[in-house]
Amino acid sequence: MEKTENDVVPALENEEAPAKRQCIRCSDVEKQEKEDIKEKDSSYFKSYEHIGIHEEMIRDVVRTNSYRLAILRASESLIGKAVADVGAGTGVLSCFCVQAGARKVYAIEASSIAKQAEKVAEANGASNKINVIQDRVENIELPEKVDAIVSEWMGHFLLYESMLNSVILARDKWLKKDGLILPNKANLYLAPFTNVSFYCERIGFWSTVKERFGVDMSCLESEARKIFCSDVHIEIVDDSDLLARESLISELDLETLTQDDLESIKSPFRFSCFGRQTLCGFTAWFTVTFDTRVKGKESLSLSTSPDEPYTHWRQCCMYLDKPVDVEQDTIIAGTITLTPGKQNRRFLNIELTYQVDEGEAVTKHYSLTDGSS
Amino acid sequence: MEKTENDVVPALENEEAPAKRQCIRCSDVEKQEKEDIKEKDSSYFKSYEHIGIHEEMIRDVVRTNSYRLAILRASESLIGKAVADVGAGTGVLSCFCVQAGARKVYAIEASSIAKQAEKVAEANGASNKINVIQDRVENIELPEKVDAIVSEWMGHFLLYESMLNSVILARDKWLKKDGLILPNKANLYLAPFTNVSFYCERIGFWSTVKERFGVDMSCLESEARKIFCSDVHIEIVDDSDLLARESLISELDLETLTQDDLESIKSPFRFSCFGRQTLCGFTAWFTVTFDTRVKGKESLSLSTSPDEPYTHWRQCCMYLDKPVDVEQDTIIAGTITLTPGKQNRRFLNIELTYQVDEGEAVTKHYSLTDGSS
Repeated sequence: MEKTENDVVPALENEEAPAKRQCIRCSDVEKQEKEDIKEKDSSYFKSYEHIGIHEEMIRDVVRTNSYRLAILRASESLIGKAVADVGAGTGVLSCFCVQAGARKVYAIEASSIAKQAEKVAEANGASNKINVIQDRVENIELPEKVDAIVSEWMGHFLLYESMLNSVILARDKWLKKDGLILPNKANLYLAPFTNVSFYCERIGFWSTVKERFGVDMSCLESEARKIFCSDVHIEIVDDSDLLARESLISELDLETLTQDDLESIKSPFRFSCFGRQTLCGFTAWFTVTFDTRVKGKESLSLSTSPDEPYTHWRQCCMYLDKPVDVEQDTIIAGTITLTPGKQNRRFLNIELTYQVDEGEAVTKHYSLTDGSS
Repeated sequence: MEKTENDVVPALENEEAPAKRQCIRCSDVEKQEKEDIKEKDSSYFKSYEHIGIHEEMIRDVVRTNSYRLAILRASESLIGKAVADVGAGTGVLSCFCVQAGARKVYAIEASSIAKQAEKVAEANGASNKINVIQDRVENIELPEKVDAIVSEWMGHFLLYESMLNSVILARDKWLKKDGLILPNKANLYLAPFTNVSFYCERIGFWSTVKERFGVDMSCLESEARKIFCSDVHIEIVDDSDLLARESLISELDLETLTQDDLESIKSPFRFSCFGRQTLCGFTAWFTVTFDTRVKGKESLSLSTSPDEPYTHWRQCCMYLDKPVDVEQDTIIAGTITLTPGKQNRRFLNIELTYQVDEGEAVTKHYSLTDGSS
């Protein structure tokens, strides 16, 4: 795997995934089976929206500690300075900035969670330093230019439901010349992967109904395949399921990036396979880098790669209509294009053209939506 | 636990929860941790809507086999008869009816999955017997009265997003006098339960942020509690976490039930606790009964009780603002009222008044929505 030169936040002992429900009195097999199913309980945050979303994000220790460490490392750049926290949520990053010595933090948050950010600022004795503004970046003016912008704007596939446009806007409105942006870089990666058992289990289900329940439903397989293979699936990919070194698809420099740059991100890719395997599709992930501009303090990366510890972003998987066998040195090449959704710009459309060795070029379209469209 | 007199579909060997992703090459601890997290992957069906929902329902073997067995047991009542399948989905119940000998099945399905039901009918050689109608019950007329109605209309908490109103309407429009309804009865149950570790982990999270990340966020606990304790949580409850025998809250007879009956379902409850425990809240589940009216064939129940095998309905949990310690023979008494959502009638509002022994009566309000409101 290609490694960035920056250090990566190590796995911490208290790393947490969504909390595991405990059951200390379970004894027999059936109960254990139920426990196993519990682990998959998809309602974990579902019925606990709003504040629950922030709980999930803060519980993500890779995310929260990356920001904490980066902001504290940037202390020399932040002492006595003004900062804008774009999409401040519960205000945790704003508090890190105050701890790092910021004179004033403008915590901009459009949703009603802003009220909680005010309470958090107060509880941390930072009410006089953190100015919570419940509005959108485009609607407001700040009383001064800022020396730094911090923002946790990244979504699945980096750009899905992301706040990057707001960060660019805030930069153009308020950031002083040569001001600091944390993070200042974002890289998007793509790699071919295999996951045959999952693929077969999902697509193949309909052909098993006859045996299970006596009704032939195999005719639904083609429709199931069509949907399954045009959605972007948010999954946890094992690094051992990657078939080749990843390709860098996009390298966003937040100091120079424009809104126009995000209208279409297009990149070629080329993979040389490690060995004999079955290509099921392509998986994408991102890293962001915090260059603190403090001498002697290395910059720091937050990585959502399959070979790094779990983050709540996981990886984004796009399946082919039909798995393809590959060998060592098989070349998979093509182009990927990301564009915002036409009806909802927070959604993401992906066009992917690929060719395996000298095979036919195939073009597929995927979309990442909230499931309602 | 109170038992119904009817037999309950036994746990089957091929019982399935949402499929487990396999990873045979994982070796070290970190990978195992990632595997553990995978189990909780909340995106399992999220990005695979539409046909994926039907996959989840058909994979629920308790559900699918209950209907299959009930319909086949009712064969003597169905041979040569006309049946309406209300909310036919992919048409699997319609196929069971044809297998049981029905002359004609009107498979009424408002959503576009109806097109798949047509394919399924054809694949099973039943195109001439299954008449798929893609429309709502209220919009259509059938060419004849029917001898039976089958429907899988139940939602979480029995009535959330349920199609029961459509079943009543279909009955009143088309069912012959003394016609068969499968299922013909539905019972809703309530029981007090404990789940201290989950409760503390979720509500208590905000007080741990200071220790984890150096920011005091304990002030969010009251807001988190407010939301957590007014949502209905869809969870898997261990029967060992039930604190008393359940109370029967509602007994719906589909042969006589009216739309008006569903405007408000109110019931007292009274529990006598098994022993010393911590009451965290109340959990609800349902059973439905299929009376096939065939001599010598017992009626059959589909149960979603915590002491029966897993179903995709799981149980519905409502948490108290503060857990309460109880002892053996502690009496928990009160009333529960279910009403449809005011803005969206497919949602569910629950008013729950309870009193622990001679303690103060407490009234709580819960709602079961899709998370968007």
